[in-house]
Amino acid sequence: MKTDIITIGDEILIGQVVDTNSAWMAGKLHETGYEVRRILSISDKTEAIHSALESSLHDADLVLMTGGLGPTRDDITKAALCSFFNCELVFNEEVFNHISGLFTALNKPMKEAHRNQAMVPSACTPLTNRFGTAPGMMFKTHGKTIVSMPGVPYEMKGLMEDHVLPMLTTSSDEQIVFKTLLTANVPESIISEQLTDFEDNLPSYIKLAYLPNYNFVRLRLTAKYSGVTDLNKEVENLAEKIKTILGEVVISEEDITIQQLVGKILKQRKQTMSLAESCTGGYVAHMITSVAGSSAYFPGSVVTYSYENKTEVLGVDSEILWQVGAVSEEVVEKMAKSVRQKYDTDYSLALSGIAGPDGGTKDKPVGTVWIAVCSRDRIYSKKYQLKGNRIQNIERSGHLGLEMLRKLIVGELE
Amino acid sequence: MKTDIITIGDEILIGQVVDTNSAWMAGKLHETGYEVRRILSISDKTEAIHSALESSLHDADLVLMTGGLGPTRDDITKAALCSFFNCELVFNEEVFNHISGLFTALNKPMKEAHRNQAMVPSACTPLTNRFGTAPGMMFKTHGKTIVSMPGVPYEMKGLMEDHVLPMLTTSSDEQIVFKTLLTANVPESIISEQLTDFEDNLPSYIKLAYLPNYNFVRLRLTAKYSGVTDLNKEVENLAEKIKTILGEVVISEEDITIQQLVGKILKQRKQTMSLAESCTGGYVAHMITSVAGSSAYFPGSVVTYSYENKTEVLGVDSEILWQVGAVSEEVVEKMAKSVRQKYDTDYSLALSGIAGPDGGTKDKPVGTVWIAVCSRDRIYSKKYQLKGNRIQNIERSGHLGLEMLRKLIVGELE
Repeated sequence: MKTDIITIGDEILIGQVVDTNSAWMAGKLHETGYEVRRILSISDKTEAIHSALESSLHDADLVLMTGGLGPTRDDITKAALCSFFNCELVFNEEVFNHISGLFTALNKPMKEAHRNQAMVPSACTPLTNRFGTAPGMMFKTHGKTIVSMPGVPYEMKGLMEDHVLPMLTTSSDEQIVFKTLLTANVPESIISEQLTDFEDNLPSYIKLAYLPNYNFVRLRLTAKYSGVTDLNKEVENLAEKIKTILGEVVISEEDITIQQLVGKILKQRKQTMSLAESCTGGYVAHMITSVAGSSAYFPGSVVTYSYENKTEVLGVDSEILWQVGAVSEEVVEKMAKSVRQKYDTDYSLALSGIAGPDGGTKDKPVGTVWIAVCSRDRIYSKKYQLKGNRIQNIERSGHLGLEMLRKLIVGELE
Repeated sequence: MKTDIITIGDEILIGQVVDTNSAWMAGKLHETGYEVRRILSISDKTEAIHSALESSLHDADLVLMTGGLGPTRDDITKAALCSFFNCELVFNEEVFNHISGLFTALNKPMKEAHRNQAMVPSACTPLTNRFGTAPGMMFKTHGKTIVSMPGVPYEMKGLMEDHVLPMLTTSSDEQIVFKTLLTANVPESIISEQLTDFEDNLPSYIKLAYLPNYNFVRLRLTAKYSGVTDLNKEVENLAEKIKTILGEVVISEEDITIQQLVGKILKQRKQTMSLAESCTGGYVAHMITSVAGSSAYFPGSVVTYSYENKTEVLGVDSEILWQVGAVSEEVVEKMAKSVRQKYDTDYSLALSGIAGPDGGTKDKPVGTVWIAVCSRDRIYSKKYQLKGNRIQNIERSGHLGLEMLRKLIVGELE
């Protein structure tokens, strides 16, 4: 099943918005075994939409479109679809009731523009949009399917999850098996060198992909096979081979993030953790609490951004602060110890650094980060020198910190 | 000058990588007055590259390609270009010297794979890649220009800045002016209705775009004009018109986020804020501290995820907690009051809700969120009922909370 993704909107073509929708959709389709042939971003002009649809329908079986479905006049996708399928806009009561329902819930008056959103091309099947007033629209023609969705990411995701993905099934006898291993602390280039022979000996129907993310690399085996074979067993054996080659670099055999892994380990051990953040300013807490059920092992954390705060909230000696600075072994270790005691958790993590762009000095340049992890009977800290911009330094620090904490918990810390 | 951007690589088509290169290139081109007609992401297969080039050269004057130029075996762009322009790979001494220079600098041995990178299509002009071993390649055919660059972002940017952008000149006397207004609390649909006449009367060379994000909509005016006129003044006047029509719905005349705006206002007033987060679990602190210089107005915050924590850290009466629950007016207001006093800030924001997927009850379903803002002499709180998944509920709560805080600070709270 060949798929094309078409994103509509000048904001993408002038570089104001990065198209993250396509990557999300492509990832979901890939997991279901659909091959995305191309991703096309075009202007919100009728001709552009028509010619994109024509060329896509020439080879693709499924065309997913996003964008240009809002109530505003720069949203012209609906009209363009009408003319393309030469049909007319007709009033759809179901859509109307959904929209008016949304407004009753907000108890706000419904406007003309919203009434118009209940007008849909007669040739389409409207798809209910849980999160907005613009319905998705599904068209079928010559055995091909076209789905048009709004460009607002959470509305698009809702429509994909509610309507599009459930509709997709892998082609008849083709089996697809995925297996992901999470590795830590070794760069992609070195892993790929160690796996050269392994990759050379992979059967043609099994692929290995590298998904690097800061100090982690996810290794994903994708096996597609039409015919009879125990694909699961084969993939499991290959995963075992990788583990033998890479050793303890492989930290998980599930497709999970470091925050999910740390949470899983803590849950299993019925243990808890707390956090004291300076340079990461809440990012690590956000990583942890993005995981559903994190309240089981995460009672809370503090962001101590100022000197005063580090002193008052965590009892960091202000003299030490002024002597050695907040970005130091002494301070970060004190932060970790205090927050663990204060929140009475089994473990704690503390981060203090200079995210940038300002605040760097000659001996503590931007990107200097001290990270400490602490248990009831041990404290460990390490200094890192990062090279990214503010956001990258914040995110990388968070990932390094959680991996350091994982090592402490499972006893892999040297 | 019509431009197409073609990004080559399966990693984009399987959703492994978000294509940020295209947005960067599109932005640069837009600033120089070049219209990007479409952005196309394709597989690294020869046929895909050929057919993309054919269709692009049909209408575009300039085609920028990225990806598939590395030394690894799956990088086949160069071969595909050779067959497309039916020419051969020839050894280029200049390129070779550049590559070997890079290795001498790193004092690492040069590998065979790198030697091969000095082989370039005879039909192209090689472009020196400051940051890598893969040269850019420029082809000219029938008055059209094709430039192929590596997909590594900083290598591509170097080639764009060194070779491509200098080659582009804004078409004769065309001026381009942008102006963005940030609006809050009114959906796109209602704004567009209020701006109907305004849009009807816009000159053909000025466009208005709507960019919604949670409870905010950015309104962007883009003006392109060839000829003599004070375009800046014209756009400023139009922005004024919009402000007159929408009134206090327009909360900023800059292209900034709510966290940047709140920070800017606090800096101007030399005031400070703190935070107490429950359901948002650090996300709001992360929003605030993502802004460089936020330490000037943000001493810190707490994430109180558990009942015990709310009591111990913020002194929330545990009886009240067990009576009315953490997601309640009493608790969220106490959280806001305590954190403001504790951190001695001018303002505070507190959020307590049920992000989901679990934890919902009949009278407090998933998505129920209480938000409170507090100053030295006022406290205000409001209940929201959100409909998203966990992450969406967290993000929307954060945006609603910061807007509520902004209103309190500037005195717009009813």
